Amino acid sequence: MKHILLVLVENQSGVLSKVSGLFTRRGYNIDSLSVGETEDPGVSRMTITARGDDSTIEQIVKQLNKLVDVIRVLEIKKSESVCRELLLIRVKADMGKRPSIMEIVSIFRGSIIDVYDDSLMIELTGDEAKIESFTELMRPYGIMEYNRTGLTALKRGKFCEK
Amino acid sequence: MKHILLVLVENQSGVLSKVSGLFTRRGYNIDSLSVGETEDPGVSRMTITARGDDSTIEQIVKQLNKLVDVIRVLEIKKSESVCRELLLIRVKADMGKRPSIMEIVSIFRGSIIDVYDDSLMIELTGDEAKIESFTELMRPYGIMEYNRTGLTALKRGKFCEK
Repeated sequence: MKHILLVLVENQSGVLSKVSGLFTRRGYNIDSLSVGETEDPGVSRMTITARGDDSTIEQIVKQLNKLVDVIRVLEIKKSESVCRELLLIRVKADMGKRPSIMEIVSIFRGSIIDVYDDSLMIELTGDEAKIESFTELMRPYGIMEYNRTGLTALKRGKFCEK
Repeated sequence: MKHILLVLVENQSGVLSKVSGLFTRRGYNIDSLSVGETEDPGVSRMTITARGDDSTIEQIVKQLNKLVDVIRVLEIKKSESVCRELLLIRVKADMGKRPSIMEIVSIFRGSIIDVYDDSLMIELTGDEAKIESFTELMRPYGIMEYNRTGLTALKRGKFCEK
């Protein structure tokens, strides 16, 4: 099962290796991780997605909470949150193929952010499933470059953080 | 100076802590990091932004290249690349304030992805400067939640990777 953890940490050198080390020691692979700034420059926010059984994740959450630099850990369920990821992709596209690619991009509400003689650069946001279906549709054209940010999420409903 | 590194790594447990450990040992703080999947499930891609002088970064790139799990390291310049970040933000918005917030969101080509009695959830993509100006404009309304993915980037111009 896929788990999403939001971790608020002090913005200090070394926190990331402590947190990722915790996962490594348990032989637990992180699927995606994104660390970004928050509205407070002293605090960073990590969104970690990892696959595994509930008990291992529970252990990891407990261990995370013990780290001095960790301010707060929150496990969020997909059904109770808004999850988004950003995809940048470059697809082979000669003049003849451009219209059909642009059609798909518009259906997925993506945007074309750069054009070359032989290719298009496309930006798309969405949840994992959307990003993956779009990727599948682009595969036959030829994917030249591909970069995803990893998931970021906010809880839905009544505000309950901090 | 801000540096952006693209690192292609084997998708294995422990790679992230090795890479982040390298930065830590040099007392070097990572501003943002995003790890995501690539079109090849065995390969992950990291985008790391860090501040520092050229010589330190050069050292780090050399050290990264020595790691067995690292396939390739590429330093990219802002002027030669498309950089994007994803912001999810929840802003206080009663009925009276909604129109003015929606106006700003539309100018920034963001989108409103969820609505509550007292607040709006907004999604926005752009480079750092755009994300920051938008954040500044939202601050007076009251930011309730804030999450950024960290930068992701693709090189502009002739395809030169792999």
